[in-house]
Amino acid sequence: MKLPNGFLASGVAAGIKKNGALDLALIINQGPEFHAAAVFTSNKVVAAPVEWSKQTTKDGILRAVLINSGGANACTGPEGFADTHRSAEYLGQLMNISSSDIAIGSTGLIGTRLPMDKLIPGIKDATASLTPTGVNCAEAIMTTDSHPKTYESDLNGIHFYGIAKGAGMLAPSLATMISVICTDAVVDPEWLQSIFEDIVDKTFNSIDSDGCMSTNDTVIFMASGASGKNITEDEFRERLLEVAGNLTHQLIEDAEGATKVLRINTVNALNAHDAREVGRACARNNLLKCALYGEDPNWGRILAAVGTANANMDPHRLDVYLNGVQVCSNGSRLEVEPVVDLTPRLIDIRIDLHQGNEEFVVWSNDLSAMYVHENSAYSS
Amino acid sequence: MKLPNGFLASGVAAGIKKNGALDLALIINQGPEFHAAAVFTSNKVVAAPVEWSKQTTKDGILRAVLINSGGANACTGPEGFADTHRSAEYLGQLMNISSSDIAIGSTGLIGTRLPMDKLIPGIKDATASLTPTGVNCAEAIMTTDSHPKTYESDLNGIHFYGIAKGAGMLAPSLATMISVICTDAVVDPEWLQSIFEDIVDKTFNSIDSDGCMSTNDTVIFMASGASGKNITEDEFRERLLEVAGNLTHQLIEDAEGATKVLRINTVNALNAHDAREVGRACARNNLLKCALYGEDPNWGRILAAVGTANANMDPHRLDVYLNGVQVCSNGSRLEVEPVVDLTPRLIDIRIDLHQGNEEFVVWSNDLSAMYVHENSAYSS
Repeated sequence: MKLPNGFLASGVAAGIKKNGALDLALIINQGPEFHAAAVFTSNKVVAAPVEWSKQTTKDGILRAVLINSGGANACTGPEGFADTHRSAEYLGQLMNISSSDIAIGSTGLIGTRLPMDKLIPGIKDATASLTPTGVNCAEAIMTTDSHPKTYESDLNGIHFYGIAKGAGMLAPSLATMISVICTDAVVDPEWLQSIFEDIVDKTFNSIDSDGCMSTNDTVIFMASGASGKNITEDEFRERLLEVAGNLTHQLIEDAEGATKVLRINTVNALNAHDAREVGRACARNNLLKCALYGEDPNWGRILAAVGTANANMDPHRLDVYLNGVQVCSNGSRLEVEPVVDLTPRLIDIRIDLHQGNEEFVVWSNDLSAMYVHENSAYSS
Repeated sequence: MKLPNGFLASGVAAGIKKNGALDLALIINQGPEFHAAAVFTSNKVVAAPVEWSKQTTKDGILRAVLINSGGANACTGPEGFADTHRSAEYLGQLMNISSSDIAIGSTGLIGTRLPMDKLIPGIKDATASLTPTGVNCAEAIMTTDSHPKTYESDLNGIHFYGIAKGAGMLAPSLATMISVICTDAVVDPEWLQSIFEDIVDKTFNSIDSDGCMSTNDTVIFMASGASGKNITEDEFRERLLEVAGNLTHQLIEDAEGATKVLRINTVNALNAHDAREVGRACARNNLLKCALYGEDPNWGRILAAVGTANANMDPHRLDVYLNGVQVCSNGSRLEVEPVVDLTPRLIDIRIDLHQGNEEFVVWSNDLSAMYVHENSAYSS
C-alpha cells in the first residue's frame, strides 16, 4: 500500500475514543496541484465539520483533510463550529497552509462536544506522524467498522488511493459514511466536480435506501498532479468508478449485523428516477428485509414494496426474478411454484417494469436481529 | 356487544387457515338505508378484492362485506379476480342482493390463490350463522393479531360499532389493515365519504410511517338508518373519530414484536404536509427505533431523522422533547445533559419546528429483535 505521489498521511490515537483506539486521521496534499472535489450529506441537519468543509471545498482547492472518529460534532451549536474552526486553524499553522484549504470530517455520536484538550495535541501528533504509506489512516476513521477499508489502483504510472468508513447500511438513515480518494494524476478542474458527483451517485449513493444520509456524510477527492501525467475525462471516470465502486462494496459487506447483501436491479424503467425509486422502496422495506434474513422466498413482499414506489408502473406487467429465478410474471404468481435458493450471501433481486429502457442498481442488506441489537445501545 | 340496528354479522372457520381457526367474516346491512364509504390502500399493487371493492363502493351503496383471512388474494392474476367475483356472486345469490352491492376483503399471504372449494361452502356457512351480536366476526379477520379488536359507542339512541385487524405497524410497509365500522344513524350521503376520508387520515393513516400501505388495506363504513335518528355532520365526525381512533390505538398496541409505542408530535410546522413528513421521517428511521427499543436517549438520531424530511425547517431552530424533557434546543445540545426516563411503554417525542402553527401526530413503535424474528419466516 502506498499513497499517490504528493500525498502524506497518518493515523493516531488522540484519546477522543475512550478505549485508546486510533481516532484521528490526516491526509496532506503536497502538490504541485491541489484540485479537489467533494460531496456532502443531503440531510438538512448537518454537523459543524460539514458546514465548515462545504465552504473550504467550494473553490475546488484543498491541501489537507483532517478526520476524527469518536464524536460527530453534530448538533453542538456555535461552540461545536468554533471547535472545528479552531482545529483547522491550528492544523493550518502547523503545516503553514491556509485553514481555508483544509476540510474537516467527524464521525461518532451526535450531540457531544469534542474533547479539544485531546484533539489539539492529537493534531500535532498527526502532523509529526505523516508518511507516504499512510499507515493507520484508514483505521483511524473507523467507528463500528469491523476492519479498515482501503483500495488502490494503477494506470500507466498514475496512482489512485482511497479510504472509507461506514457500516450502518441497513438503516433508512445511513450511519455516517466518510471517504477520501486521492490521485497523483493531472486532472482538469473543469470536469472534476461534475464527474465526481456522478460517480458518487452511482457508487456511495447507490447503497441502501431512501436518500437519507447522516448528519456527517462526506466524500472528498484530491489530485496532486505529482505524477506529471494527464488523465482524460473517460480514463478518470473509469478509474474513479473502480475505486469508489470497490470501497462501496467493502461498506456493504461490512454492514452492521447483516447476513445478506441485496443487489436490487430495476430494469426497463421509464426513466432513471423511477428505476432508483423502485430499488429504494425495496431497500427500505423492513418486511422484505426480514423475510430475506429468514431466507423466506416471500416474493409477494417485493411486489408490495414495489407498489409503494413513486414511479411509473403497470402492476399487471411487473416481472420479478430472485437469484435468477422468475418468481412473478405480469404482477402475478406462476403456475408452478418456483424454487429459489436464498442461502447465498448475495441475493439478486431483478424487477422488470416494462416501461422503458433505464435501469439502476441499489445495494442493501437484510434486517437481522443482530442489527437491532447493535443499534439499540449505541450511545449508552 | 351488539351491532347497530339493521346489521347482522358472523365469523366462521371455512378451512382457509390450515389450523382450523376462524377465517371468514360476513357483515350484512338490512337497511332501510345502505349508505357506505370506503378508503383503500394507496399501493399501486393492489389485491383482487381491492380492485373489486373499489368498483362496488363507488356509488356509496353497500349491503354486505365479506372478509377472509388466511390469504390475501393479491398478485394472483385474472384467476384471483375471478375468485373474488365468484365469491361475491355466490353471496349475492344466497342473500338475494346484487353482487355490485358487496365489498370483499382479504388478508394473509400474497401470491397464493384462495381455496375456493373451502371458501364457497364457508360463505354458505357464514350466511347461516348471522346474528345481531356479530360474535366471532372480529376474530375471523385476524392474522398475526394477538386478539380481536372491536369498539362500540352510543349517542342518544344511535349506535356505532367497529372491528379492525392489523398488527405489523413497525414496518415501513403496513401489514394489511382492515376495518369495518357500522352505525344505525341516518347519515347524509352528501358529506359521508369526505368526512370518512378525513377521519381515516387522522386515525388509521396516522399509524407508522412513510405512507406505504399493503396491497390489501381496506376501511369500510356502512350506515343502516335503522335507528330512525339523524346525525349531524359534527356529531358524525366526533363519533367516527372516537371509534376509528380507539381501533387505531388497539392496532398500535398490538404491533408485532413491539415493546414501545411512539407518539411523534410535530408542532409549529409551516403546513400540515410538513408536520406529517417530519413525523414519518422519524417513524421510519430504524436507527432511532432501535435506540428507543434499547431505551437509549440518543436524541441525535431524532435530529438526524428530522433532517431527512422533505419539510421546511431551520436546523438551528429545532427543539426536541423526549417524554416531556427538553433534550435539544435550537438544534443543539443543552449545557446540562438531560435525564430522560425511557422505561414507560409510551414514548412521547415532540419536535418543535418554529415555522408556523400546524401540527400532526404520527404513531409508531420501536424496532425490536422480536419484530425481526416474527417477520423472518412468515410464508415458510
